[in-house]
Amino acid sequence: MTGTMYGVGLGPGAPDLVTLRSARLIGAAQVIAYPTLAGAPSFARSIVADLIPPGATEIAIEIPMVRERGPAQAAYDAGAARIAEELAQGRDVVTLCEGDPFLYGSFMYLHARLAPRFRVEIVPGVTSMTAASAAARRPLAARDEVFTVLPAPLSDDALTAGIAGADSVAIMKLGRHLPKVRRVLDALGLTDRSIYVERATLGSETVCPLAEAPEKAPYFSMILVLKGNDPWL
Amino acid sequence: MTGTMYGVGLGPGAPDLVTLRSARLIGAAQVIAYPTLAGAPSFARSIVADLIPPGATEIAIEIPMVRERGPAQAAYDAGAARIAEELAQGRDVVTLCEGDPFLYGSFMYLHARLAPRFRVEIVPGVTSMTAASAAARRPLAARDEVFTVLPAPLSDDALTAGIAGADSVAIMKLGRHLPKVRRVLDALGLTDRSIYVERATLGSETVCPLAEAPEKAPYFSMILVLKGNDPWL
Repeated sequence: MTGTMYGVGLGPGAPDLVTLRSARLIGAAQVIAYPTLAGAPSFARSIVADLIPPGATEIAIEIPMVRERGPAQAAYDAGAARIAEELAQGRDVVTLCEGDPFLYGSFMYLHARLAPRFRVEIVPGVTSMTAASAAARRPLAARDEVFTVLPAPLSDDALTAGIAGADSVAIMKLGRHLPKVRRVLDALGLTDRSIYVERATLGSETVCPLAEAPEKAPYFSMILVLKGNDPWL
Repeated sequence: MTGTMYGVGLGPGAPDLVTLRSARLIGAAQVIAYPTLAGAPSFARSIVADLIPPGATEIAIEIPMVRERGPAQAAYDAGAARIAEELAQGRDVVTLCEGDPFLYGSFMYLHARLAPRFRVEIVPGVTSMTAASAAARRPLAARDEVFTVLPAPLSDDALTAGIAGADSVAIMKLGRHLPKVRRVLDALGLTDRSIYVERATLGSETVCPLAEAPEKAPYFSMILVLKGNDPWL
């Protein structure tokens, strides 16, 4: 009997936005795996540090911070091989995933490598998009509105088309792409419908109109563009 | 001192996909409010029935099942007035929301009426979209992919444009719109990229290729259209 790999969503960052199911799986885990950017502490692990059993084996998957995909692919290869060893010996492995495992999560790279050979269970988590909407106190989408998620690295044209085609938009992974996204929203006349949200649900959370956003955005920031404006819906 | 209204997301339906924060708020509630379709038990209440304190006051907001918006608006007016009475007397009110409160949730109608006058806190929840993706064991979006949510009541043209502009799509609220959505996906040549998911995370969950989906879909069903297909990402 081989073990099961669990991909458990942890939500946007506040420890109490973890689901009961994820908390239970983590609390009972023999083996825990998580990604970590080379040299830095793991954000995923920090969310649930208080839930990890003291005796658990921990597999830290160090992702190199370079733009080429080769080195990261090699890191996922190595991480998947290490997890596979545990699964092959019949131990379950609980893999920690910021947000939701299947929405822009690095867990997908492990899933692609291991799902063909082992039993995998996914536990969905609260996404940063709805957490940002809650932090901004503004509904994301109602009735028959179209809601689109756009990664900020997309081109000006792709961002423009995506924003134009939706009623509400979440633009993720801002980082160094913030000036480009500002330019696109200005050109569409949507800056005053745009809200900047940084580190939603964390102690350092920032929410403000885009016009008042800082010059530099971290990776864990997003812009919500909310075109609808009927206060009584 | 007036009370606080909490809009707490409950996730897609499995009781253990509630967050720790929502569970704590419900377990400590003096007053609980929830929507219910006239004559039927409340789905939201059923998710967390085991967490509601025995002595809690319950406010059931009966939503009439008619297509005109007037009667539903009147029901939200009355529900909001009843909640306002409790808040005005200094009691907190925990309002139960299927999925996430701010993504196609009926909570928005209460929020629009009460947020101008009372303190409101939103607790985000797991959405049915990522729960469906987990159930289907298929990632929703990776890297720089565009993800769009489309309500099935939209027109053929609006659905076609939304699907064409995204890499992954979740088509929500299928119900009686299933034949139209099938037609649109067939015309786009995307039927074999489409997965039907009904009642994700519940005991009666169904996941199958769209071609094998039943003729009739309930409201709590969706189609995931996943154009990307690189197993190693």
